[in-house]
Amino acid sequence: MPRDEFVWINKQRPSKYFDSHIIEGIGDDTAVYSSSDDFDELLCVDTLIEDIHFKKSTMAPEDIGHKALAVNISDIAAMGGIPTYYMVAIAVPTTWSDDELEGIYRGMTELGIRYKMDMIGGDTVSSPRGLMISVTVRGKVEKGRALLRKNAKPGDLVFLTNTTGRSAAGLSLLLDKGRHGRFSMQESELVQTHQRPEPRVQEGRAAAKIDPLISLNDISDGLASELNELAEASNTSIELWETHIPIAKELKNFPEKNYWDWIFYGGEDFELVGTVRESDWPILENEIEKTESQLYVIGRVLEGNPLVTLLGEKRKTILEKKGYNHFKQ
Amino acid sequence: MPRDEFVWINKQRPSKYFDSHIIEGIGDDTAVYSSSDDFDELLCVDTLIEDIHFKKSTMAPEDIGHKALAVNISDIAAMGGIPTYYMVAIAVPTTWSDDELEGIYRGMTELGIRYKMDMIGGDTVSSPRGLMISVTVRGKVEKGRALLRKNAKPGDLVFLTNTTGRSAAGLSLLLDKGRHGRFSMQESELVQTHQRPEPRVQEGRAAAKIDPLISLNDISDGLASELNELAEASNTSIELWETHIPIAKELKNFPEKNYWDWIFYGGEDFELVGTVRESDWPILENEIEKTESQLYVIGRVLEGNPLVTLLGEKRKTILEKKGYNHFKQ
Repeated sequence: MPRDEFVWINKQRPSKYFDSHIIEGIGDDTAVYSSSDDFDELLCVDTLIEDIHFKKSTMAPEDIGHKALAVNISDIAAMGGIPTYYMVAIAVPTTWSDDELEGIYRGMTELGIRYKMDMIGGDTVSSPRGLMISVTVRGKVEKGRALLRKNAKPGDLVFLTNTTGRSAAGLSLLLDKGRHGRFSMQESELVQTHQRPEPRVQEGRAAAKIDPLISLNDISDGLASELNELAEASNTSIELWETHIPIAKELKNFPEKNYWDWIFYGGEDFELVGTVRESDWPILENEIEKTESQLYVIGRVLEGNPLVTLLGEKRKTILEKKGYNHFKQ
Repeated sequence: MPRDEFVWINKQRPSKYFDSHIIEGIGDDTAVYSSSDDFDELLCVDTLIEDIHFKKSTMAPEDIGHKALAVNISDIAAMGGIPTYYMVAIAVPTTWSDDELEGIYRGMTELGIRYKMDMIGGDTVSSPRGLMISVTVRGKVEKGRALLRKNAKPGDLVFLTNTTGRSAAGLSLLLDKGRHGRFSMQESELVQTHQRPEPRVQEGRAAAKIDPLISLNDISDGLASELNELAEASNTSIELWETHIPIAKELKNFPEKNYWDWIFYGGEDFELVGTVRESDWPILENEIEKTESQLYVIGRVLEGNPLVTLLGEKRKTILEKKGYNHFKQ
């Protein structure tokens, strides 16, 4: 662990920034950058806490760094935006080595570079117990074009990128075998989704092209929870069609009871879920086809009180707003 | 402690925002706001950790909230800027009650309202041990007008708002007697400086009027440390004049050895220190007179390698870059 905060912060200071709008990055009281009248600004923060969101036994330092940044990029993606800068507040206990700490920054930097994001600030402090990492991400989106949850309208189709439940399945495997355990190819895919989730920035940008604006949310707390948020923000009711819910092939090795729970309540897949006018569906499908993702219709928005229901062949279930609610763990 | 994160976050959502540029505050994936071509943006983050930066025995919940926001507003002040929005990432252990947590938000909100700042986001998670609060503040400053450390020039006068060492003296009293202890009037002043530091936003704005731009820094890590940062960023040498260093009357009740240490290395007073051309000194003095603060000349910027020296009557001392370096505590 670096014994000198000043030296450590300076070591993280990049020699140049991707974005020419940055006037001062790391190294003064605040970061300074110029903004543009063409864009609205996006700002979000998310925190990972040792033994709550990860354990040393489930995540390598690089994974922790990757995920701490990815969960925030995902929030920008869910607004249809472009991630631009990030700041890292980290509290480090003496039980973490210099190498481990550098691993965390390496994981963040690698992901940041892929999105041409600049680290423009941070705060490094010691922690009496447990590592805490809180990342702030700033992004931008064309003026007036942020994809808000309240945009859902009765009649809209509900769509999902790819599949959910994979991260929760991966965590289950990791808690069982540890991160150095032996995993089959399919298991490794699930573990990878948990440790290195891929934010869907391209897909969010594709969705942002639809006019009028659609609603969009990223799945951090589980499909059920996120759809409840959409329903509440737009004052609509949402029905999902059980036969339309995609099930990742890797999940089918687990008992059905487990994987349905993971699909609806697992969280941390960081896929995108949203709603789109039926007439705009072909446009969205066409745009998403240009990305690496699959797109699925999974239900419809209805008039009515905010509620999410699942229509099965034999029964109708209410999908409650539970999930990765950290206070309940 | 709130058992349901969703309910808690919604409870913090204000019914209206001060700033009409906010499109979405709390309640979607990210905050969204429009920016302006007239201003550059400022962004910073600072973290307070229980048992590292505060203890329940030294700070009331309201003090913790106040300070967590104040330390960030101070960074904006040090750029000559206007604080506008903030986001709160907080990790709460089960040992903290609902009332205490609300006290923290009350302390933040009271300070935020005084500066017409809007809380636009955050993240509330549980902590296995110890409270952690990390605040992100966004501010703005007129385009190209941020007060950078590198602006110091040989020949400049070094100035200081008010006095330093008071917060460290207050902490010393608090560690001695606890926050429910009995304090004299003068002691209470010191305790107040430690618990409820006042960011110098007005003073920073006053300093930002000088043309050409001056250098400015806020004193979070101690006068010696901050001046070393100025010297390094501007590649100059700084000499302080011992007879010019102001000593708060409340400090004179302590042994001289103690208070000199606090003055140079104490930190957390959140006063402003900077440098100004001698010819612009009367303008700065005139601007600062309109605020509640006193202004002192305490030394001069010289050519030479980055170094801070103190010229006493009999000796010359090097003031090293130590201070509130949390990794060394």
